[in-house]
Amino acid sequence: VAADRRNLIVVSNRGPVTYSRENGERVARRGGGGLVTALRGLVAHHDVTWIASAMSDEDRAVAAEGAIDESLGDGSTVRLRLVKHDEKAYDWFYNVVSNPMLWFLQHYLWELAYTPTIDIALKHAWTEGYVRVNEGFASAVVEELEAAPDTPVFFHDYHLYVAPRVVRERAPDALLAHFVHIPWPQPDYWHVLPKAMRTAVHDGLLANDVIGFHADRWRINFLRSSRDLLGAESNFVDYYAEHAGRRALVSVHPISVDPNEFEELARSEEVLAAERGLVERRTEQLILRVDRTDPSKNIVRGFRAFELYLDANADAHGRVRMLALLDPSRQDIPEYSEYLAAIQREARRVNDRFQRDGWIPVEVSVEDNFPAAVAAYKQFDVLFVNAIFDGMNLVSKEAPLVNERDGVVVLSENTGAYEELRDWVVRVNPFDVAGQAEALSRALSMPRAERHERLEAIRAHVRDHDVAGWIDGQLADLDRCVASASSR
Amino acid sequence: VAADRRNLIVVSNRGPVTYSRENGERVARRGGGGLVTALRGLVAHHDVTWIASAMSDEDRAVAAEGAIDESLGDGSTVRLRLVKHDEKAYDWFYNVVSNPMLWFLQHYLWELAYTPTIDIALKHAWTEGYVRVNEGFASAVVEELEAAPDTPVFFHDYHLYVAPRVVRERAPDALLAHFVHIPWPQPDYWHVLPKAMRTAVHDGLLANDVIGFHADRWRINFLRSSRDLLGAESNFVDYYAEHAGRRALVSVHPISVDPNEFEELARSEEVLAAERGLVERRTEQLILRVDRTDPSKNIVRGFRAFELYLDANADAHGRVRMLALLDPSRQDIPEYSEYLAAIQREARRVNDRFQRDGWIPVEVSVEDNFPAAVAAYKQFDVLFVNAIFDGMNLVSKEAPLVNERDGVVVLSENTGAYEELRDWVVRVNPFDVAGQAEALSRALSMPRAERHERLEAIRAHVRDHDVAGWIDGQLADLDRCVASASSR
Repeated sequence: VAADRRNLIVVSNRGPVTYSRENGERVARRGGGGLVTALRGLVAHHDVTWIASAMSDEDRAVAAEGAIDESLGDGSTVRLRLVKHDEKAYDWFYNVVSNPMLWFLQHYLWELAYTPTIDIALKHAWTEGYVRVNEGFASAVVEELEAAPDTPVFFHDYHLYVAPRVVRERAPDALLAHFVHIPWPQPDYWHVLPKAMRTAVHDGLLANDVIGFHADRWRINFLRSSRDLLGAESNFVDYYAEHAGRRALVSVHPISVDPNEFEELARSEEVLAAERGLVERRTEQLILRVDRTDPSKNIVRGFRAFELYLDANADAHGRVRMLALLDPSRQDIPEYSEYLAAIQREARRVNDRFQRDGWIPVEVSVEDNFPAAVAAYKQFDVLFVNAIFDGMNLVSKEAPLVNERDGVVVLSENTGAYEELRDWVVRVNPFDVAGQAEALSRALSMPRAERHERLEAIRAHVRDHDVAGWIDGQLADLDRCVASASSR
Repeated sequence: VAADRRNLIVVSNRGPVTYSRENGERVARRGGGGLVTALRGLVAHHDVTWIASAMSDEDRAVAAEGAIDESLGDGSTVRLRLVKHDEKAYDWFYNVVSNPMLWFLQHYLWELAYTPTIDIALKHAWTEGYVRVNEGFASAVVEELEAAPDTPVFFHDYHLYVAPRVVRERAPDALLAHFVHIPWPQPDYWHVLPKAMRTAVHDGLLANDVIGFHADRWRINFLRSSRDLLGAESNFVDYYAEHAGRRALVSVHPISVDPNEFEELARSEEVLAAERGLVERRTEQLILRVDRTDPSKNIVRGFRAFELYLDANADAHGRVRMLALLDPSRQDIPEYSEYLAAIQREARRVNDRFQRDGWIPVEVSVEDNFPAAVAAYKQFDVLFVNAIFDGMNLVSKEAPLVNERDGVVVLSENTGAYEELRDWVVRVNPFDVAGQAEALSRALSMPRAERHERLEAIRAHVRDHDVAGWIDGQLADLDRCVASASSR
């Protein structure tokens, strides 16, 4: 699919590179974000202009200079256009509306009896922050389209829901696609937002020609909420929604990883060094979780589940350990720092109950250390993913690729990945800690032949459905839109 | 409709009468529950056997004696059959599973990052409490059906979801109907329960021939969750779901009140006395809320909204008061006592900020005092109903019937009543306290002619759609089922 080189515009809040100034020199640092990694193939094979927020002072200096070409280090070059936002507007956009408001809403995390409270401050953050920053992005897109009108535009994620409508008004014939990387909640839960805001979110997205999700479950939810909240004509057979005289295709393309990259990483010196440290300290069996410290990841209940497992399995004491590699996340937001505190309290509580003779049942590491994660991917006996809700969960695809112990994946039914991997994982309900304890027990005692078969099946699936396929699917959607437009 | 006298079985957790023993004598006390009031018309015009839980020691003595005839005080008689449950089983059934688990789930009230935790205790409460008590009810129903096989059975509410399946297995041809009085949440939120439990809830309900809800919104949600979670064939045009070889009709009958009863009550000595006290203390304008102290009622945000209104309207200080008449609810359950504490704290906070010269902006009364509520119904200028989610909300129907000041109803978009009254109320989003403050301002300053017109429209609607109509609609559903069964 799509062998030709194309002109494409990618729009995301976080760009592939940020700049700083060191000793009077401009220094570019590549970001390690999942989206950047996933889109590397797109940049390598096509002519991509990437529009992103200027984050640092030096980013803002770059923004003032217009678009610049930047190498992404693997021989590919991206044309980078940074957008400078008012700093207060950006804070409201990012730290008030995008996180926690939309993130919490889309993961069903609010405690509705008490939170959120939509007050004047939140409304102000919406109009003067979220909408303003989206308009900044839209203006940059429109300028690019004026120079090259037929270039397709790919918006990414929950930061940019209202930008497509602004672009559509100024460039009615533009080819616009949007990919939503997080769960789409069901219509009732969108009522957390006042009518004007929830309408703007749906109306903005429906200004696109294509809207992509990682799982069929989120697609169905989007079609339902577009119908219930906006009166769109949603078609659940051919998967489109009609609204304001336009038809938007709603597609499913599960994001994935580059298997070769992980196999290379697994052999890298950094990972091997981390692995040696891990092997020295390992007990007989290792349960691993790798997450951001995000309330959606369900880390607290995970420790409680392990406690129940230890209660029921005295023979596991001293033999089984849980390792939680946690990347600190969004610590500017109170809900996130509170959750990190709860994680630490719960781990300590379990350790205080059970530790003996140098065996510490739960080890928590809070740092951003990717080589350590890949080393642990190689060494786990059970990978534990019990997310409350998760758009995809890439850990459940990455870790099996490099695992060397026929490890078992225990996976939450509320992840996008569950739709793909369900036949080969041990399913858990994220709220059911008793069920999670049983799942850990089952996974830890599974016969080697069965573990091997399940792991190989996951590996084969991820290799057959890699990140290149994710990109090809989205490009094919664009071709369908162009074909159907020209056939009219 | 349905002029003939019928034999009917009503099944609900709480019955119309409870018994105590005073001075060696058995004393019957009629309950004031909304369901009992609503079903009074059914009992008056038909031969009803009512099956309910034995609550008191004397109830259990009555249960041991079998069914007894009991007068409901208005000349009608019910045949009452009380079911004795194991006391621990009943506690698990009522205080663990029904409240808070199902109630919180069906009103979207859990804080999913932290609550609920489905552990062994909850699973035990499910199997040894909820299921056990439902089986007790089912056995009583089956015994009644053995004596009179063609008698239709009406189950009520979220306490009895699994009983219909048990009855269906033992009496395959029984005519079973179930009315759900609370919101039905969307399929994702049912994932709060492990698969076995959420399946049992849906499978139990779908053993009925008819399932009734107060609003189309809850019906759609039920049809969707039956499809998504159980694989039922849901029909969104003719409103039925097919599962396990049977078709269940899913109908909407909004519960209502008896307008004559409220007009009589309004003239009663008790209400007039309460009203005199209220008039003596009233300020120029009165905002009224009448609720149970339930987290779903959104009382804390209501006070915050009033605070925002007072912030924006200095001229209202000393002139406008908010009166909250709160019926204490489920204080055995920690979430409920915590919520009552939060209510009291928030009222005090607002009062501490604004009170002066004898004017106290917020008056909170926590007691079960129906005459005081009806007196306040007559006297409000604005009735404030901002519920987070509410199956119906009868206050918004009762209060306008007797109001004497052309009062305005401010109503949450997430109540069942909103579907019926939307054209005549001021709509609010329950999370949007800024919007609620604006709605209060708009309602308090609305011209008298407009207020009068809106109030009269609500009254006319409630008179045309009274509780007798609610019952007739359900009986007509039964006739449809019988007709369609005999035409097969």
